[in-house]
Formats: sequence, structure tokens, C-alpha cells
Amino acid sequence: MTERLTLAIDAMGGDKAPHMVVEGVALFLDRPAADVKFLLFGDQARLKPLLDRYPRAAAVSEIRHTADIVTNEEKPGVALRNGRNSSMRLAIDAVGNGEAAGIISAGNTGALMAMAKFVLKTLPGIDRPAIATYYPTLRGESVMLDLGANVDCDADNLVQFAVMGEVFARNVLGLENPSIGILNVGAEGLKGNEAVKKAAATLESTPLPIKFYGFVEGDDIGAGTVDVVVTDGFTGNIALKTAEGTARMFGQFLKDAIKSTILSQLGAVLARGALNKFKMRVDPRRYNGAMFLGLNGICIKSHGGTDGVGFANAIKVAVELITNSLNENIKKDYAELSAHAVPLKEAVAGA
Amino acid sequence: MTERLTLAIDAMGGDKAPHMVVEGVALFLDRPAADVKFLLFGDQARLKPLLDRYPRAAAVSEIRHTADIVTNEEKPGVALRNGRNSSMRLAIDAVGNGEAAGIISAGNTGALMAMAKFVLKTLPGIDRPAIATYYPTLRGESVMLDLGANVDCDADNLVQFAVMGEVFARNVLGLENPSIGILNVGAEGLKGNEAVKKAAATLESTPLPIKFYGFVEGDDIGAGTVDVVVTDGFTGNIALKTAEGTARMFGQFLKDAIKSTILSQLGAVLARGALNKFKMRVDPRRYNGAMFLGLNGICIKSHGGTDGVGFANAIKVAVELITNSLNENIKKDYAELSAHAVPLKEAVAGA
Repeated sequence: MTERLTLAIDAMGGDKAPHMVVEGVALFLDRPAADVKFLLFGDQARLKPLLDRYPRAAAVSEIRHTADIVTNEEKPGVALRNGRNSSMRLAIDAVGNGEAAGIISAGNTGALMAMAKFVLKTLPGIDRPAIATYYPTLRGESVMLDLGANVDCDADNLVQFAVMGEVFARNVLGLENPSIGILNVGAEGLKGNEAVKKAAATLESTPLPIKFYGFVEGDDIGAGTVDVVVTDGFTGNIALKTAEGTARMFGQFLKDAIKSTILSQLGAVLARGALNKFKMRVDPRRYNGAMFLGLNGICIKSHGGTDGVGFANAIKVAVELITNSLNENIKKDYAELSAHAVPLKEAVAGA
Repeated sequence: MTERLTLAIDAMGGDKAPHMVVEGVALFLDRPAADVKFLLFGDQARLKPLLDRYPRAAAVSEIRHTADIVTNEEKPGVALRNGRNSSMRLAIDAVGNGEAAGIISAGNTGALMAMAKFVLKTLPGIDRPAIATYYPTLRGESVMLDLGANVDCDADNLVQFAVMGEVFARNVLGLENPSIGILNVGAEGLKGNEAVKKAAATLESTPLPIKFYGFVEGDDIGAGTVDVVVTDGFTGNIALKTAEGTARMFGQFLKDAIKSTILSQLGAVLARGALNKFKMRVDPRRYNGAMFLGLNGICIKSHGGTDGVGFANAIKVAVELITNSLNENIKKDYAELSAHAVPLKEAVAGA
């Protein structure tokens, strides 16, 4: 018999919360999944009637009432000081005190990261946690990090992101020897800022058991040239959102074109099955659920504007990280990598 | 009678040069255009037979023979020292000595920028030139800069890019009161690095005749939220290439879906007209021709991998900048803006 897994949910975070959160829990349960129990943190008066609509979700959920919430506008520091009884904070606390194995929130990203760092702390060897996501590419799926947790990154941060991304790709995406690339403005070694050059020198010159590809460019993200794309949080956030915006524009242009003539509308009816398959393949909800890597606990950030389908996917991501023992593997690999810590630091200093 | 416009062409730059260059000249001439004459710099033995195939192009082109070329691998500094007789350098020199009104090259970007800066110098008030392009959005067309000339930018650089982008959008895109946004990881003022915060403070607090929208995010690029997107060269290069890569992935997924069933193939036949219109709308060749803004001369960088259609478009971009007196307008506006130079600097210092 497998152990029942408990997840803590910030039921009040997200534009369409708490409805989409409860719906997400219900949709998650519709799929064959691990045996999961939910702790829903939020307003009992709003959550109870919603749960009543989804008996299967209600059967495995427990409401932990709090009236406090963290708004989207709140600064991380303020949320950290004043939000001790917020649904977000209490959900994180449940992971901190061992009640839950992971937490999912669609609320304020900065506040979630600040609180999660404060409560859960970082893993040994990791200076700063990073936000990661996986996404579709021409070759399959890749992971990219950091997506916004760290606006300024030095070479050490980037090297740590590379290690965490590699562990994720191996243990959760199931890739055997995942390749790692550092995002840059050119593939040649002489291009880019100091941080990427030093990080590349480190990953190239030390005998780490890591398959370092070298630099990749923006178009390598969609091409899937590498399994793990490493970048600072400023660039990564902008690259990810640029990709989302481009996909949206592309989709709209396609719709406009199809609507433009009777013949093309008829063609779209014939191609409906294929078009739906295409839509599903690029549906951002399938990739909803950004992971905070490097924390001593599983914390998943859902897109704030997502619906129940997207939130269900964020829950799935949390379950995958937990059942694949992501953090134990990062810790284990980082301990092994520490053997290389001295030449690694020297390489950085000498670059 | 309009004056005949002379353009200098680096006929040897680009993966498919010199063939695609000569083809590009011929395709450019196929469209109704300004009265243009071409100076083609490159290998006479290769260019002559190509020109013989396109009599209309031959009639308005003059070959300036040189055997020297700048390779794609050459470092900018090396190209600057050793490439004095290269097709790229001689074409730039033709603008420098007044023989030509602009230069187009599909060669090594770094070398082109280094040589163009050395020969043409920057406009008064501009510390560093920027690479700009315009691109399709959900709302029409917008311009983004810098796309890679300056990996590290301070607030002053970003403010200068904003001014140049605004002049371009007004004079070349024909927008009346173009809006300007600074690319950031969030729309709130507290997010981002020091450079973007200070640049935003400058553009917000000074009475410049500029419509400053504030910060924009990656997905605003495709949405067309602002007419001018200002960013540093590292982020801009990665954002642009990410958008290109996403578009390519999207296109491939669509092709895969259409090919997947007989019904969808039939549907695509019916929708052929609409699909072609869609393809044309996102065809990167239509937007080929990145502009080096801030130089005392018009210099256009074509994508290295482009074909004749794309190169013809890069020529068109050069002609548009010249006939719309872009540089004269940047100079004029910058002189006006200089009146605000003191409070502008103070705003930066005080931010």
C-alpha cells in the first residue's frame, strides 16, 4: 500500500480563486493519480459550498479556515511581516511543520517566494532558490530556470541553477543524461556578460558529471536544443513571457486567417480534430505550475490567471516532484558535487 | 524629379551570398520603389555572372571589386584592424565619404557594428548605437531596441534608446504619438534591476515630449502594448530570438497537425488561401533588416541566413530610413531634448 500524500493548498490565491482552486482539486482527482489528501487554507464560508459541489474532492479535503489573504499588490517584505495568518503562509507552514509534503499557490509570486524561503529555507549548497518550468519544444520537453526569483545573478548562482535543473530533468522528466545550456546572445565563447562567461567556464572546466552543451540562444528554447536552459531571473522571465506572447499572437493570427473566408472556415471544420490536437499541444495550461527549486520543501506556483484545468496541472507537478524525490536527489547530487567545489570555485576565480 | 539614391551593398556577407544579395537587389527593383543605384562591394568574378542574369539589376549596379571578406567567426576588433579592404568595410567607407546614403550587409554583426561606429561615428548626444527592428504584433507593428549591440546598459543608454526609438516610430512607422515601454519582469515600479528603474524614473519625471507608458513584460511584445520596446542588448537579443523560435515551433506543430489525417489535409487544401495569408503575416523575411540607430549614417544588418526576398526587404528598410530623414530627425529631436538634459541627469542621480 502506498502512503497517502498530503498537499497544502493556498485556496485564496489566483484571479479566479477560490472557485478554480476547488475545481482544480476535483479535476486532478478525475485522473488516475497518487493517493492524495488536501489541506485547503482559506475562507471556510466560501470554500465549504464549493466543496459541496464536488463530493470526491470534499471527501479528501480538509478546510483550514483563515480570513487573511495576501493580495497581488503586496510587496514581499510586507507580506512576510503582516501575512502570518494568510492562507498562503499557513499553507507553507504546513509543509514546514511536516503536515504536508508540498504546497501549491496561484497567488503573489514574490510573497510566495519570500515566505517559502523564510519558512522552508534553502537546500544545502544552494544560495538562492530559482523558479523553473518545463515547456514544449520541437524535440519534446525542456526545463528553464530561473524565471524571475533572482533579477541579478552571478556565476555561482547560474552554476547552482544548472545543477538543480539537471537533477530535475533526470529525476522528473526522466532524461538519462540531460544536456545543459546557458542562455546567451551568441553561441561563441567571447559573447555575453561576465556572469554567463564565468558560469560557462566553470561548467566546462570541472569534471562534473554534467553534460554541458555550452551557450544557447533565444531560438534554441523552442527548438529544444538542450534539455535544461539556465539563465538569470530577469532574462528568463522575459524570455518565457515573450514565448507566451508570441504563441498568443500566432494563435490569433491563425484564427483571423481561418475566419477570413467561407472556404477556410469549411477547411477548419474538416481539420477540426487536427486543430484541436494542435491546440492541446500548445495549451499553456498543460505547462502550468512553476517549481521553486532549491527550497527544503516542494513549492509550486500556479499562474495567477489560470482556471481549474491549469490548477489541476500545478497539483500534478507537485505530486511528480514529491514522488520522484526531487529534493532528496538534489541534496544527494549536490553532496557529490561538493567534492568538486574547490576546483569549481577556482575556475570561477580564474576565469 | 527625385534625386537618385545610392546604396552601398556588402555583396559577400551572409550564408547564401553573393547570390542572394544580387537576387535581393533584383527583387527590390521588381517593386515600385525610389530611384536607387547600387554599389556592390565584392568579388567581381562572382558578381559579374550573377548580375548578367538580372539585367534590370545590372543596369543600376556598379561592382567595386575586392577579394577580402570578413568571416562570421572573426572577432570585431580583428575585423576592424585587418579588414580594411573587406567588402563590408569598403561598403561602409562609401557611406562615410558621402558616395552612398546607406549600407546593407548580411555579414558578421559584431564586425559590422564595430566598423560602422569607427567610420561613421555616433550622432551627437548618443553614447552607443543600438540595433532595432520592427515586428508584427496583435495591434500592428512595434519597434524594439537594443537587440544585441550593448550587452550591458545603464539608465542613460536606455533613455537614449527610448528617444531614438520614438523618433523612428514617428518618422518611419508614421505613428503620431508613439508610446514607449521599458521591458521588465513586472509592471510594478518596484521590480527590475537598477538600470530599468532609473531609466523609468527619468522618462517619468522629466517633461519630455515623449509618451512613456512605463514597464512592459515579455508578453507585451507580441500583444503590441506599446509602440517602442526599450531594453538592453542582452535581453532584447534573447527576447527577439525567443519569439522567432516560438513562431518556428508553432508553425511546425501546425504543419504536423495538418499532416496527421486525410481530413485535415483536405481541410488545409480548402483553407490554402487563408493559410498563405497567415504564413505571409508571420514571414520573418518581411521583417528582415535590423537598423543600427544612433550612427551618423544609415546602416542595415540583414539576417545572415536570409534569402533574396529577405535581402530585398532589408534594402527597403534602408530606403525608408533615408527617405524619411531618420538621422536628421534624431539629431533635431535630440537637440530639443538637450534642453531637458539637466533635469534628466538629476532625475537619474536622485532616483
